[in-house]
Amino acid sequence: MQDNTTTLAELIKLVDDFVAERCWEPFHDPKNLSCSIAIEAAELMEHFQWLRSDQLDSVRDDPRTMDQIREELADITAYVLSFASTMGIDVSSALMEKMHKNASKYPADKFRGRFR
Amino acid sequence: MQDNTTTLAELIKLVDDFVAERCWEPFHDPKNLSCSIAIEAAELMEHFQWLRSDQLDSVRDDPRTMDQIREELADITAYVLSFASTMGIDVSSALMEKMHKNASKYPADKFRGRFR
Amino acid sequence: MQDNTTTLAELIKLVDDFVAERCWEPFHDPKNLSCSIAIEAAELMEHFQWLRSDQLDSVRDDPRTMDQIREELADITAYVLSFASTMGIDVSSALMEKMHKNASKYPADKFRGRFR
Amino acid sequence: MQDNTTTLAELIKLVDDFVAERCWEPFHDPKNLSCSIAIEAAELMEHFQWLRSDQLDSVRDDPRTMDQIREELADITAYVLSFASTMGIDVSSALMEKMHKNASKYPADKFRGRFR
Repeated sequence: MQDNTTTLAELIKLVDDFVAERCWEPFHDPKNLSCSIAIEAAELMEHFQWLRSDQLDSVRDDPRTMDQIREELADITAYVLSFASTMGIDVSSALMEKMHKNASKYPADKFRGRFR
Repeated sequence: MQDNTTTLAELIKLVDDFVAERCWEPFHDPKNLSCSIAIEAAELMEHFQWLRSDQLDSVRDDPRTMDQIREELADITAYVLSFASTMGIDVSSALMEKMHKNASKYPADKFRGRFR
Repeated sequence: MQDNTTTLAELIKLVDDFVAERCWEPFHDPKNLSCSIAIEAAELMEHFQWLRSDQLDSVRDDPRTMDQIREELADITAYVLSFASTMGIDVSSALMEKMHKNASKYPADKFRGRFR
Repeated sequence: MQDNTTTLAELIKLVDDFVAERCWEPFHDPKNLSCSIAIEAAELMEHFQWLRSDQLDSVRDDPRTMDQIREELADITAYVLSFASTMGIDVSSALMEKMHKNASKYPADKFRGRFR
């Protein structure tokens, strides 16, 4: 599986099958999953907790840390997709619509290089 | 765009183009993006903050809340994909490998219906 | 030290001295500390991640889990106090003023047993 | 109320009375409160989301932002104290013991100016 060829539906099936094989659906309610996304997000953030902005490039050159970061990002993604599945949300169309909304809120010519 | 036909690479391009058109790359460093994922995860969690487990089904029947939840999930996804892009992580293969690792850690026959 | 007799200033001094003895002030900038509060909050939340509302009472009867929870709460508190110290915020007066504001926003007779 | 003279017990009573006057105890279970701490922590973090390390000093000079930060810190504190109250945790002794544990883990002479 690679980002160039894998659809969201295939990734969601991967996660849903894992949950179903263990009968974990009762645990995967939307409240628990939103907590889980936040918990994994915090674990990702932990890798940058004490780094100054000018020290961040060094992380990319540390293979062991990059492996851990890759796993944390996978964990977040798994819970995001499980949440989408249990709530019947189509992630692709939700993202596309939100990016359009953001584009109206932040016109490129007015917000080039700044947020406000 | 729909989950059945949209690849991760297409969604990542959607987010990358949005960032590039506004020259926001300097803001999208991995520390800021990990904070952003956590912030949006907290906003998703807020919708369930005071609900008991037995009240969660009602959320699915409330279209206005569902719209907001869908937008929060899109925000999380946008930051996850931007993080993957800036760190050169292939989300699909990272997720597949993590699910295999989880499958070894939690064999289905030993963890059916329970975590420990 | 006990809550009945210990002032906030005494606890802040405890944390400030620990930081100063290690010359960790440069790490304790407000951004890093806000990340740290969020990270420790997630670790506290992890103890309740998969529990339904009706299973929460059991946690109080599990001394090992209670010890861990107590430590997570101490970690959060340490970072809250370090944040207050570095930003020159008086926690007691900030809390008192916020509770007054909340009392105006949620008059007791209108919000008895409900949030909205 | 000021940090120099206010005990933890006085602050906890302030929060407990607020909750009791509204009969909100059923909402203030440990899971919901741990979510609430994480949610307010994210709101605090939001004020630093896009700032580089070298831009943080400017925040202290912005009275409007400082007021908001002060309120977020008060919100976190309120939930920390409510959590401690509902779980029967003495915050002062928990913090003191954790700082002693940290002092053993990070001897000052070995960890001066660094974490590892």
